Amino acid sequence: MTEQNIRDLKEIVGNEDCYNDKAHLSAYCYDATKDRKYPECVVFPHNEEEVSKILKYCNTHKIPIVPRGAGSGFTGGALPIEGGVVLALEKHMNQILEIDMENMVARVQPGVVNMQLQKAVEAVGLFYPPDPASEHYSTLGGNVSENAGGMRAAKYGITKDFVMALRAVLPNGDIICAGKKTIKDVAGYNIAGILIASEGTLAVITEITLKLLSKPKYKQSAMGIFPSIQTAMNAVYKTMASGITPVAMEFLDNLSIKAVEEKFHKGLPTDAGAILITEVDGNLPEEIQYQIAKVEEKFYENGATQFIKATNEQEAADLWFARKNASPSITIYGSKKLNEDITVPRSKLPELLEKIQQVSQKYGVIIPCFGHTGDGNVHTNVMVDGSKAEELEKGHKAIEEIFKITIELGGTLSGEHGIGISKAPFMKLAFTQEEMNLFRSIKKAFDPNNILNPGKMAL
Amino acid sequence: MTEQNIRDLKEIVGNEDCYNDKAHLSAYCYDATKDRKYPECVVFPHNEEEVSKILKYCNTHKIPIVPRGAGSGFTGGALPIEGGVVLALEKHMNQILEIDMENMVARVQPGVVNMQLQKAVEAVGLFYPPDPASEHYSTLGGNVSENAGGMRAAKYGITKDFVMALRAVLPNGDIICAGKKTIKDVAGYNIAGILIASEGTLAVITEITLKLLSKPKYKQSAMGIFPSIQTAMNAVYKTMASGITPVAMEFLDNLSIKAVEEKFHKGLPTDAGAILITEVDGNLPEEIQYQIAKVEEKFYENGATQFIKATNEQEAADLWFARKNASPSITIYGSKKLNEDITVPRSKLPELLEKIQQVSQKYGVIIPCFGHTGDGNVHTNVMVDGSKAEELEKGHKAIEEIFKITIELGGTLSGEHGIGISKAPFMKLAFTQEEMNLFRSIKKAFDPNNILNPGKMAL
Repeated sequence: MTEQNIRDLKEIVGNEDCYNDKAHLSAYCYDATKDRKYPECVVFPHNEEEVSKILKYCNTHKIPIVPRGAGSGFTGGALPIEGGVVLALEKHMNQILEIDMENMVARVQPGVVNMQLQKAVEAVGLFYPPDPASEHYSTLGGNVSENAGGMRAAKYGITKDFVMALRAVLPNGDIICAGKKTIKDVAGYNIAGILIASEGTLAVITEITLKLLSKPKYKQSAMGIFPSIQTAMNAVYKTMASGITPVAMEFLDNLSIKAVEEKFHKGLPTDAGAILITEVDGNLPEEIQYQIAKVEEKFYENGATQFIKATNEQEAADLWFARKNASPSITIYGSKKLNEDITVPRSKLPELLEKIQQVSQKYGVIIPCFGHTGDGNVHTNVMVDGSKAEELEKGHKAIEEIFKITIELGGTLSGEHGIGISKAPFMKLAFTQEEMNLFRSIKKAFDPNNILNPGKMAL
Repeated sequence: MTEQNIRDLKEIVGNEDCYNDKAHLSAYCYDATKDRKYPECVVFPHNEEEVSKILKYCNTHKIPIVPRGAGSGFTGGALPIEGGVVLALEKHMNQILEIDMENMVARVQPGVVNMQLQKAVEAVGLFYPPDPASEHYSTLGGNVSENAGGMRAAKYGITKDFVMALRAVLPNGDIICAGKKTIKDVAGYNIAGILIASEGTLAVITEITLKLLSKPKYKQSAMGIFPSIQTAMNAVYKTMASGITPVAMEFLDNLSIKAVEEKFHKGLPTDAGAILITEVDGNLPEEIQYQIAKVEEKFYENGATQFIKATNEQEAADLWFARKNASPSITIYGSKKLNEDITVPRSKLPELLEKIQQVSQKYGVIIPCFGHTGDGNVHTNVMVDGSKAEELEKGHKAIEEIFKITIELGGTLSGEHGIGISKAPFMKLAFTQEEMNLFRSIKKAFDPNNILNPGKMAL
């Protein structure tokens, strides 16, 4: 980018919202992958019209431009790998525009933090279920772009299940509106559908209309302790197919349990093969009792040795402690965590976990696993000494083998985190040449000059 | 098409599954619009491979090709308006391939009739909620292509909410798979998302993977009688925002009530301004009681004069009789029914219905309304004498005005039926030039030669 480019962009957003000094470029060069890719300029638009002008300018001058929310993604989606502009939406475009209680709908700008919306709607008795682990800092624009999941996906689904409409700006500057504040809308192509999970490669989202639910009045948590990971995985899919739908059905394997216990000394069952932590909700106490009884029945039927019910909020928090602290705890196994979020049909979980154990033995790497088993999503963490090249290589080989196993079991490379650059090398495992060609045709239809988040998703 | 084209297509599917005789062309020239558009050839593929060969052939020879299920669509989606091939999928590609109880998923071919799947999954305790009025004859391929709704959409959503994966053939013959048998999948663009509701213009769907739910154990129906349509519409959105979600919340206006009563003499309240018919479901009797009590409270709060609860299946069927027979009954008001399926945010229903009454007075046409108010979807029926040109013209003007009102209220041209050719002239009311350009770019990305269902959706 030239000095003239910077001056032109300042013309659009003002001097106070366009920077190319070292401090700003450093502040916008990272995400949760810990990679560093420096932009040439950081721009903070105030509104959709400015986003349009900026995109039109970049398109005309063939300048790469990368939309960014909180920079909390795990796959490099917000990294400007070809330089150019980082379009930072969290500074000014971060307002909840409307909570429409009559239609149970919220309209937000992309920079609103997930938890900010959750709290605002819960204050008026409504409920926005998608709760990625990053809920306290990730933005809704990022959640839509990556189609974020969360613990409650087992019952309520993921971000795409709540997006009713999007406003967005195309790379040529055209402003479009896709969808309506209506439950149904079948006029025209489902543009919102293709923008969700498109990782900022097709358009810049400027407004999001989200479906809200009523907040359930009651909930209860419980934990099941299992002798082996296989018994736990059988219990997962048999419970989910038993006629009830728990809100969450999370698991920790033995390595993860031990790691949390070593770090926090909470009295966790370190000899257990796995634990399952679950929550049910509803509007009546009878619904809670019915669901918890059914979970207990299915857990014991499938080999649980113990079933612990929380009887108040503190006990529930205690049960959830292990799950919420699994990710930071497992660092005891290695300085570098190769963290993936593979997902398989639930009935394939026992086989998946068995095969991951074989991969662990084959490569001599430790692979603690935990995650959202209620929807088949497992966070596999290949732990290595990041300072040793041969360890890293072994780790990457183990990951590739785990991806192959996942695809063979009918699963997907990513349940929540997206592809970005981290998983781009594995796209050929998951998609045929014909499918990749189609992705590229679609990219070209939206972005013929390839200015928007270029180099992502193996496009 | 030439005789050689016919011989070549026979080479692909066999002599018994490719026809260009008058009987076949007549049998495949219609849909529920009652328009007639004759194909030049009807082909019945046996499998995905044949679909691929046929599309590749048509693409090479620039022959238009229109996929067709039951031909029950309301907007001309299956009409071959430019001649060419009708690709009829209901004859051979009509198998339920799998009901996977462990993962609660069904895999079906596109020619499976909606009710055939509903019955098969209910036999094993599962549940496929989308229930368009055409459920006894429309196919799931058509349901996906039009994103069909139904009475249960208020609680359970529409077809798109149940599609997990699609296999499809692109116009160039490429076979693609989009999505997985997993709750989550964020790898690659959401191709299934854009194929849903694309009205057969982007690809031919060859296999559908659908999410299933557990069948709720209990349900109960009730009817509320209201003095005016406005009181009923207020009751709709206030009930839906009260913390419960009825499965269905259907309405009939006074004209529709009178029509059913005149035809069937069921003792309906012909002096009522409107009736609402609702159903709640759940796994416990307590859930049913709680929900019905809440509906009753909200109905009376908003002006209902009577609330009738069904206490057994026969009473429920009696309550639903009026709704299920509204469509055939209103023909008493005119020989030609201009039937639209506009949808607005629920809170706009009172204003919408008031303005439709004004349109009715302005043009001197009778407009009985009924429909799926629980999701804001109103079937407006402009009734005219189809033999009088000036009557038809008045009717079309009334329809255009209703569309304008709908868009102004934040609604959509179509909640369920799609655009096809019937609503193509109104696309310019709903979409900007920029949005239409984007639709055309996407069409071109999938179908550069414009062979697949050409001339639809104002593309």
